[in-house]
Amino acid sequence: MSITINIEAQLADLSETVRDEIARLLAGNQASKLLEAMKYSAISGGKYLRPFITYNVGKIFDLSIQDVIVAAASIEIIHCYSLIHDDLPSMDNDDLRRGKPSCHKAFDEATAILAGDALHTFAFEILSSENFNKDAEIRCKVINLLAKSIGMNGMAGGQMFDLQYEQLEVSEEEILTMQKMKTAYLFSVSAEIASILAKSNDIERLAIRNYGLKLGLAFQIIDDVIDVEGTEKHAGKKLGKDELAGKATLVSKFGIDYAKMKAHKLSQEAKSHLLALGDRDYNNLIAIADFVIARSY
Amino acid sequence: MSITINIEAQLADLSETVRDEIARLLAGNQASKLLEAMKYSAISGGKYLRPFITYNVGKIFDLSIQDVIVAAASIEIIHCYSLIHDDLPSMDNDDLRRGKPSCHKAFDEATAILAGDALHTFAFEILSSENFNKDAEIRCKVINLLAKSIGMNGMAGGQMFDLQYEQLEVSEEEILTMQKMKTAYLFSVSAEIASILAKSNDIERLAIRNYGLKLGLAFQIIDDVIDVEGTEKHAGKKLGKDELAGKATLVSKFGIDYAKMKAHKLSQEAKSHLLALGDRDYNNLIAIADFVIARSY
Repeated sequence: MSITINIEAQLADLSETVRDEIARLLAGNQASKLLEAMKYSAISGGKYLRPFITYNVGKIFDLSIQDVIVAAASIEIIHCYSLIHDDLPSMDNDDLRRGKPSCHKAFDEATAILAGDALHTFAFEILSSENFNKDAEIRCKVINLLAKSIGMNGMAGGQMFDLQYEQLEVSEEEILTMQKMKTAYLFSVSAEIASILAKSNDIERLAIRNYGLKLGLAFQIIDDVIDVEGTEKHAGKKLGKDELAGKATLVSKFGIDYAKMKAHKLSQEAKSHLLALGDRDYNNLIAIADFVIARSY
Repeated sequence: MSITINIEAQLADLSETVRDEIARLLAGNQASKLLEAMKYSAISGGKYLRPFITYNVGKIFDLSIQDVIVAAASIEIIHCYSLIHDDLPSMDNDDLRRGKPSCHKAFDEATAILAGDALHTFAFEILSSENFNKDAEIRCKVINLLAKSIGMNGMAGGQMFDLQYEQLEVSEEEILTMQKMKTAYLFSVSAEIASILAKSNDIERLAIRNYGLKLGLAFQIIDDVIDVEGTEKHAGKKLGKDELAGKATLVSKFGIDYAKMKAHKLSQEAKSHLLALGDRDYNNLIAIADFVIARSY
């Protein structure tokens, strides 16, 4: 299955909506240097791919943008927190992010750590509020799933393994587990949250979760390919860094061609999970799976 | 009002219970360097004063330790996350914490940042779980209150001001607002969470909230006094650091005597809020307010 849909144009549209929503959510808070740093990183020129997934999964279950916008924004806020912390000198030491200086370069390290922390907290603040969803059971389910996906057994744990694996010889399985934790779980939760909001059945929810997981893994592998093949202007971040840092990736272990093949396979697997959704119109989700491996930034 | 109750002995008892609970909560997770760092900081020799407040507020509303233990543990977990991040070189640069090397000294900076992050997330994971409380409305209320207290307008924002005020001439009001955000809000939420769990009425809840706020402010001022007057062995952390860093405190601005007087006054105010609780037995809360200003560590 492959369908001609202009994902880039749709992404650009939605990114504006999500950016506006994050700006709106942050606007009610007292002015401070900390808030400036949070806005600097969270209202910026990212792809906003994760909220785009939330939105598009919602759409196949007939949810409107209003139904999913707070959840989508909270996912992006968590992603921004992780970028700020991952870019720190003691972590991946990235000076450039989304085409501008990283938070700790534009401000300073302490401010960046606190801006990441405050964004992290803020996501849970907005998800626990009635303004997000009237049903407290649903709010708790979303919070619990998100927390499990980004904590010690998810994003933070994956980032830890990523640092530990530098300069080490690790297996393909270890690399994929690390990348699943570091990246794919947040993709998976971006998708699954929309199915929770839609109260979809267990089969649909599992299909959506697995779609997100495979999609996220394909995304990360292509990210590693771009680190070698991409242009910095296009990517908005420094490239060629994995080799310098001795990062464990499929590219460093098996080369570009194998990595691309693997990403392609994962993208196909992501699509195949959608078959469980039967008659629902999931063409956009297929197009996203194509986009993720075709992208060059 | 002043009552002879041995708070230190009670604190020692409860700290063991809370430590065990945190150990139990963390035990289910996969072994990793990150989990080791989290345990190193969260299962350690702290005072466990914040969970002690949660427990004692719960007790006046007839809640058992089982009713409040997860909430109490989550407060301590958040406190530990903040200590790990505050101790980092780019923040307060503390090498010693609770009588042993700070997390970034025992491990490394990246691990400490991620251990703080993962503890931060974990608190929200356990508070959103049914195992904490069957009522999802209550879970969301607790999460929302906690998030508001520790985010940009609370703990993280207060830490930011604390760093910004170094070497600056700031007013007493600015110092107190910063310390309220940095420290007192977490005390306040430690107390208020128990009143939410007890479904106490609005008057009681407000009294408890204000008690916690004044108590927390008094605690922070005495902490600044201990930084000048205390012994490192007793405090379990480096002292004399505020003057070196040029921290804005009541001690640095007005001297030890004024700071002690102010803390004493706040402790009295904390107690006076308890009058709204009528016939309930709040003797332990009074004893805690006395303890907080009498302590020398």
